[in-house]
Amino acid sequence: MDTHVLERLVAITGTSHAKTTVAQKLAYSYDATANFQAMPDIVLSPSSIEDIKEIVKVCAKHQIPIVSRGSGTNLAAGTTPTSGGVVLLFNRMNRILELDQENLTITVEPGVITQAINEKVASSGLFYPPDPSSMSISTIGGNVSENSGGLRGLKYGVTRDYVKALKVVLPTGEVITTGGKLAKDVAGYDLTSLFVGSEGTLGVIAEITLGLIPEPETKKTLLAFYNELEQAAETVSSIIAAKIVPATLEFMDKGTIQAVEDFMHIGLPADCEAMLLIEQDGDPAVVEKDMALVHQLCLELGATSVQMAKSAEEAAQLSIARRVALSALARLRPTTILEDATVPRSEIAKMVKTIQQVAVKYDLLICTFGHAGDGNLHPTILTDERDEEEMSRVEAAFAEIFDRAIQLGGTITGEHGVGEMKSPYLEWKIGSEGMAVMKSIKQAMDPLNIMNPGKMFAKDTKKRIVVQHE
Amino acid sequence: MDTHVLERLVAITGTSHAKTTVAQKLAYSYDATANFQAMPDIVLSPSSIEDIKEIVKVCAKHQIPIVSRGSGTNLAAGTTPTSGGVVLLFNRMNRILELDQENLTITVEPGVITQAINEKVASSGLFYPPDPSSMSISTIGGNVSENSGGLRGLKYGVTRDYVKALKVVLPTGEVITTGGKLAKDVAGYDLTSLFVGSEGTLGVIAEITLGLIPEPETKKTLLAFYNELEQAAETVSSIIAAKIVPATLEFMDKGTIQAVEDFMHIGLPADCEAMLLIEQDGDPAVVEKDMALVHQLCLELGATSVQMAKSAEEAAQLSIARRVALSALARLRPTTILEDATVPRSEIAKMVKTIQQVAVKYDLLICTFGHAGDGNLHPTILTDERDEEEMSRVEAAFAEIFDRAIQLGGTITGEHGVGEMKSPYLEWKIGSEGMAVMKSIKQAMDPLNIMNPGKMFAKDTKKRIVVQHE
Repeated sequence: MDTHVLERLVAITGTSHAKTTVAQKLAYSYDATANFQAMPDIVLSPSSIEDIKEIVKVCAKHQIPIVSRGSGTNLAAGTTPTSGGVVLLFNRMNRILELDQENLTITVEPGVITQAINEKVASSGLFYPPDPSSMSISTIGGNVSENSGGLRGLKYGVTRDYVKALKVVLPTGEVITTGGKLAKDVAGYDLTSLFVGSEGTLGVIAEITLGLIPEPETKKTLLAFYNELEQAAETVSSIIAAKIVPATLEFMDKGTIQAVEDFMHIGLPADCEAMLLIEQDGDPAVVEKDMALVHQLCLELGATSVQMAKSAEEAAQLSIARRVALSALARLRPTTILEDATVPRSEIAKMVKTIQQVAVKYDLLICTFGHAGDGNLHPTILTDERDEEEMSRVEAAFAEIFDRAIQLGGTITGEHGVGEMKSPYLEWKIGSEGMAVMKSIKQAMDPLNIMNPGKMFAKDTKKRIVVQHE
Repeated sequence: MDTHVLERLVAITGTSHAKTTVAQKLAYSYDATANFQAMPDIVLSPSSIEDIKEIVKVCAKHQIPIVSRGSGTNLAAGTTPTSGGVVLLFNRMNRILELDQENLTITVEPGVITQAINEKVASSGLFYPPDPSSMSISTIGGNVSENSGGLRGLKYGVTRDYVKALKVVLPTGEVITTGGKLAKDVAGYDLTSLFVGSEGTLGVIAEITLGLIPEPETKKTLLAFYNELEQAAETVSSIIAAKIVPATLEFMDKGTIQAVEDFMHIGLPADCEAMLLIEQDGDPAVVEKDMALVHQLCLELGATSVQMAKSAEEAAQLSIARRVALSALARLRPTTILEDATVPRSEIAKMVKTIQQVAVKYDLLICTFGHAGDGNLHPTILTDERDEEEMSRVEAAFAEIFDRAIQLGGTITGEHGVGEMKSPYLEWKIGSEGMAVMKSIKQAMDPLNIMNPGKMFAKDTKKRIVVQHE
């Protein structure tokens, strides 16, 4: 980057909020995704929308890439500065601007930690449901850019369902406001939903207004263990068939259960094939009734044991098994690659079976956990990125998993995003016509391609080899 | 239109499904919006996606406008063939294709009547919440194109919240599938949400997959009457502050109450200023508890009388007052113009006051009813479209109402759409930068401008005169 341009950029935030040394920039050359790295030219921390506008104008003039970054918890290489340029850090834009109790909204800057929103609103008896596993460190700006999901998606939906208004700095440096504190608004195209999940490729999200709901009065938690995968899947189906929509309906396979037990020593049975974590929240009478029926359904469908928490402490103890799954697995091998192939709920058992077959076929250690109620699975490959031969098997395994997910009516990514990592597979899901439409929107809104270039749209789509499954 | 082209179009559907005479076409020259009319060149009823593709390809080749039309209940001149061309009728594409009880989805053709969806799913204990007032005659394709709301929006959201997947014929004649039977999907931009509410301007919606929820077990209904508008507005606020989200929270002003009473003779008090219709549904214990508290809040905040239905029949009787509001008002004058300025819930009282002042200022008969819980009001002007002088006052009145709605953080349309009618006001809500973004998307996806031209984007934006309110 030209020194004059660099100086102009530094002048906007001031030197103390610009990172220019190699050592400083190195920390922003990667995110939580293994095997992707690229150096930015500069890392800037704006303090206001005005700062962002100035930075974007300079970048537009000189066609410099801009990568917006919260806490870098992205799992699809969505925040690596693939083509260099400016990393925009939101660490200084972390204020909660307004809690509006009459309209049930909260307005925040993008750098606010997701967990802090829930802490803020809880004191008013309100609730912001989306709960990505990284919520204690992820920023809301990152969640909005990725349309993050979480454990409560089945009952409460995902981030997009709660974004009511946005201020966005466009690639021109102009600012638009989309939506409002409104329950209904059909004035033109739904730009709010378009920016949510657009992974920083259409503009810089600079302010967010979220909808809130009343906090559920109570919550109950149970764990159920199974000797057969199908029994767990049938339990999921039978709960839905009984017209119960649990707040949480999570799944762990044998490998994950063993890893968690080895890590935490909490007495999980070592020999079972599947575990479900089921929670219901809401009115106490309804929760009591729903969970009694869930308990009964688990037993009827072959659960070898069911543990119902008797207190909030016990519930936290039970749910910890699921919450630590990723950390427990990450201990097994040097590199953890977490995927999130997603299928319609009815296809979970088939998908898990395929993942197990793929692990055998490519001689890989794959453990699977995830959101069974959503069909959103996280097959996790424990590997070593330094081993090129093994990494080629990892890539082949994921290609086969994505292929199968799509065969089953699913998608390549349920909640992590496309980023750079999954961009070669996007066409598998949306087809060449879908790619053309998305590219035309990108081209129309960001003709200079300065907004997070190299993400979502790959240079080359992977050749799809359709595998026949029995 | 060239005779050869006309013949090619007729050949696609067959002569018995093509309307070409003036008498036939006249019926499709207008919709439910007063004062807008234009003749189509032909009206075609395709029977399949293949038919639609063929029609679109012919239209693209010859740059012929295409206006998709369900039952023509649109209230913003969204389905008038402003620039002539083809009206696509969905009367033959009215099949329910699949009810998937495991994934809680229903897949339908666009011509299915909204009410028929609810009747179909009710037998399986399921529920499709969006309930526009026209649901017994409107089509689901129209609802999706307009992102229709309804009376249950506060608790259950609007049409967009339930659309999970779409098949869309693009302006090129190619077909894309967006979304899936998935609880979570972040593979690229949210094209599903972009097409929902796009008013036929981006493509032809050819197949729709909707999400369903378990049917609420029970429902309770009450009516509350007030001598002061503010008391009704405060009741709305206090219900939300009590952490209750009612299924329905509807408002009628004095003029509407009187019109309904004159029409139905159901004993509504003649002298009150405001009425609320409040319903809660769900688990019987929760409904009982919520409605007891709602009843108490109504009285505490000054309701002169509260009627709680004791049976389903009584509930239907109470809710009929609100359901017939538009029909009752339509009897008063030759022309009924129904608007849907929408504000944040906290601003309802201010908005209703403004509407009343505007009625006096312009010497017009304006009655207001609507969805108080959503801030979605329907100020209804009873007028006569043959009286040019009065119509100029109507236009000035609406301009002032839109201006005030936007001042209060609201929008020009909550659930009816922009169409041709409100296109001159769209910029007031979204600004010139927002218009530029929307136009760039339209241009990218429909460069020939054959998809419902003249809707959403006006040739000229109305000059905005900002009125100061106390």
